[in-house]
Amino acid sequence: MQRPSMEFWFEFASTYSYLSVMRVEQAAAAAGVEVRWRPFLLGPVFLALGWNDSPFNIYPPKGRYMWRDLARLADKYGLPFRMPSQFPRSGVLAARVALIGVEQGWVAPFARAVMTANFAEDRPIGERPVIEDILSGLGLPAEAVLAAALTDDNKLALRQQTERAAELGLFGAPNFRVGEELFWGNDRLEDALAWACSAAS
Amino acid sequence: MQRPSMEFWFEFASTYSYLSVMRVEQAAAAAGVEVRWRPFLLGPVFLALGWNDSPFNIYPPKGRYMWRDLARLADKYGLPFRMPSQFPRSGVLAARVALIGVEQGWVAPFARAVMTANFAEDRPIGERPVIEDILSGLGLPAEAVLAAALTDDNKLALRQQTERAAELGLFGAPNFRVGEELFWGNDRLEDALAWACSAAS
Repeated sequence: MQRPSMEFWFEFASTYSYLSVMRVEQAAAAAGVEVRWRPFLLGPVFLALGWNDSPFNIYPPKGRYMWRDLARLADKYGLPFRMPSQFPRSGVLAARVALIGVEQGWVAPFARAVMTANFAEDRPIGERPVIEDILSGLGLPAEAVLAAALTDDNKLALRQQTERAAELGLFGAPNFRVGEELFWGNDRLEDALAWACSAAS
Repeated sequence: MQRPSMEFWFEFASTYSYLSVMRVEQAAAAAGVEVRWRPFLLGPVFLALGWNDSPFNIYPPKGRYMWRDLARLADKYGLPFRMPSQFPRSGVLAARVALIGVEQGWVAPFARAVMTANFAEDRPIGERPVIEDILSGLGLPAEAVLAAALTDDNKLALRQQTERAAELGLFGAPNFRVGEELFWGNDRLEDALAWACSAAS
């Protein structure tokens, strides 16, 4: 029997990705499922659908609902939440660094720290000093990590991962992918884990 | 202590409303929550957001995902599902009849029968003979009910209910409303029920 696994596609600017980034490791561990982290950028995916901004900004009733829903859900999960003064913030730098974290094995705590900075501490995660500070806080060599994140090869890797997201039919975030099955949204995490377990058994 | 209650806003053309229409009474009864049925039309709500069709048709990746998600969820809930050959179908006549059903106390079985016709039997629920057949199948006087549904007063009542939906900030369906709290989507049914119980205690 194969150990069940699941791809986790998320974007640092995405509100519902915040909830899943904070929850996914614990929920997956409890279910015995391995998580494969897949940071990507929603911007190009949204542009292909005709949106040059977050749909939560383009459609105000949807945005108003989302912020209230997010506050309620954070409360339900026991997660801190403060409405960011800017939305969406660029997740490009954080995603580039996260790719290095996938290679080196520290993506999960890094992603949680960036998401907490964005959605609980209202810090500008698109800016290099904030990311440096987060890396240092995790005991990582910030300068070396950022140098690796900003190589042309790594920038290309993020572009390719984002193109792959579009090929897979992603149109939002977060997503959980189990084999060919796509589960969209924080509220599908448990269904995706159940699918991974049943597919592997 | 007040008996907890919840408004249930749904549209007969809506795929995720299908799941909730089939589940809501049983789940609410188990939680001790009274359901107040609020049929409305998504068409005018979507038009106000700039969509002249279902977003699932306008954005193909979203539509492809939705149909797969719906099939999986129907399976999870033990509900029959067959992809309708036409989507969306007009829910106008069914919603007009449902308003009479709210007054007369048979909206729940009527809504379940119409939703089953649309999403499990691929029947054209926008057409009068189908609605007549459903009413007769429930032992209701189809001609008299349809006459009441098609009065100017009742048509106006549905328009007003749809305007109310927009005022409440609805932008999709189904929705559950508990006091001033709005819960959007079939996957929020359990959260809405928990909120209703805790608000009433």
